[in-house]
Amino acid sequence: MNKLFIIKIGGNVLDNPEQLNTFLKDFASIREPKILIHGGGKIATHIGNQLSIVSNYVDGRRITDEQTLDLVTMVYGGLVNKKIVASLQQMHCNAMGITGAFVGDIKPGDVNTPLLHVLLKQNTIPVFAPLTHADGKMLNTNADTIASVLAVALSKHFDIRLIFCFEKKGVLQNVADENSVIRHITQQTYTTLLQQNVLKDGILPKLENAFAAIKSGVKEVLIGEANDLLKNTGQVTEGTLITL
Amino acid sequence: MNKLFIIKIGGNVLDNPEQLNTFLKDFASIREPKILIHGGGKIATHIGNQLSIVSNYVDGRRITDEQTLDLVTMVYGGLVNKKIVASLQQMHCNAMGITGAFVGDIKPGDVNTPLLHVLLKQNTIPVFAPLTHADGKMLNTNADTIASVLAVALSKHFDIRLIFCFEKKGVLQNVADENSVIRHITQQTYTTLLQQNVLKDGILPKLENAFAAIKSGVKEVLIGEANDLLKNTGQVTEGTLITL
Repeated sequence: MNKLFIIKIGGNVLDNPEQLNTFLKDFASIREPKILIHGGGKIATHIGNQLSIVSNYVDGRRITDEQTLDLVTMVYGGLVNKKIVASLQQMHCNAMGITGAFVGDIKPGDVNTPLLHVLLKQNTIPVFAPLTHADGKMLNTNADTIASVLAVALSKHFDIRLIFCFEKKGVLQNVADENSVIRHITQQTYTTLLQQNVLKDGILPKLENAFAAIKSGVKEVLIGEANDLLKNTGQVTEGTLITL
Repeated sequence: MNKLFIIKIGGNVLDNPEQLNTFLKDFASIREPKILIHGGGKIATHIGNQLSIVSNYVDGRRITDEQTLDLVTMVYGGLVNKKIVASLQQMHCNAMGITGAFVGDIKPGDVNTPLLHVLLKQNTIPVFAPLTHADGKMLNTNADTIASVLAVALSKHFDIRLIFCFEKKGVLQNVADENSVIRHITQQTYTTLLQQNVLKDGILPKLENAFAAIKSGVKEVLIGEANDLLKNTGQVTEGTLITL
């Protein structure tokens, strides 16, 4: 099976134009097939404030308030997604913005796998905003969830490394020490780490998410820093590699 | 060659939710391969006012002011495009929002024809916002132009009818009489109509546009009302059919 990188980039990088530019350059230079899923960032909150829309709900998992939905559809699906696509195209990366058109209520069975397959074969790089739709309405959906669902749906066709970029180097042995990255976690060592009470609350949902993906057919999950993207797509990774 | 409808819907219909819904239902029910290109509508002006962005430039052909570009990218590429896609999907039309990712400086050679071909073969319905990009920046581009360029680019692979939906039934013999639609214009009868001074200023750019497309390989252009879409995709049309 061919390798496929499914890469999720979070809001903190999106809010910093220089960091984002560096990240996109690294992303564009990856030679293997790849998919990008981006989060939202604070820009929705800024624009929401200007439009007098209360911004508390923007970062929530699912928003039913219509004004806020319009806001995130505009900002994530319009502004953020299109700017990323335009930048990548300028870097000669054949990106195509897709805002959840394939994903219904966000289960792997809802993903239009044949179409994504065809796009990747055509050397087109799908870029997903954290939006899905149901009953003719757009929904704001957690970008981690979209990334996991895509990875599981495509795992029959590709050897997938699902990469979650976040603000730390990886899963840390000691939260106070950025250099204490645990380089590899398997299901067995995960159990030991849990027993030793090494892992702090913040990282646990990410790891549970990762193992759920692994158990559903995704070959590898990597948790690391956006800066380290190129290292984390290689054989010797800088972040935390998670396998069965 | 297979038939392909390339349909452009303008701002006036987008601003009216009921009219838009009827139009999309009609669009969804067309059985042949089809592509939708939508304009902007007044919503960008409304949101722009709330954000204190001067809206004079919104309907212009090309906008260099960055704030306004962000606004149209958000509203056209985000809100309008995604709402249309979500509505079509609810109507079981496998729509996919594409915001100019394929079109650089808007010449037929810039269109990623193989990819569109693959999407159409996959029974995916591309929905284009009036946005293109150049040098990593989004540009607001006239929706008529995008429709024409797409039609010319795909004319080698399909028998295309390019349909421009506007506010009248078609090209009128007498502007005061909505029932005076000229049903068929060829290059020859066009010359005669010009000599007779029948055509008014407003319709001339549309007809020039239409004949430019026809001369570049597009089989048929139809100018008609959004309400008449289903009739205008048939053999006996309600609007004005333009051929060589």
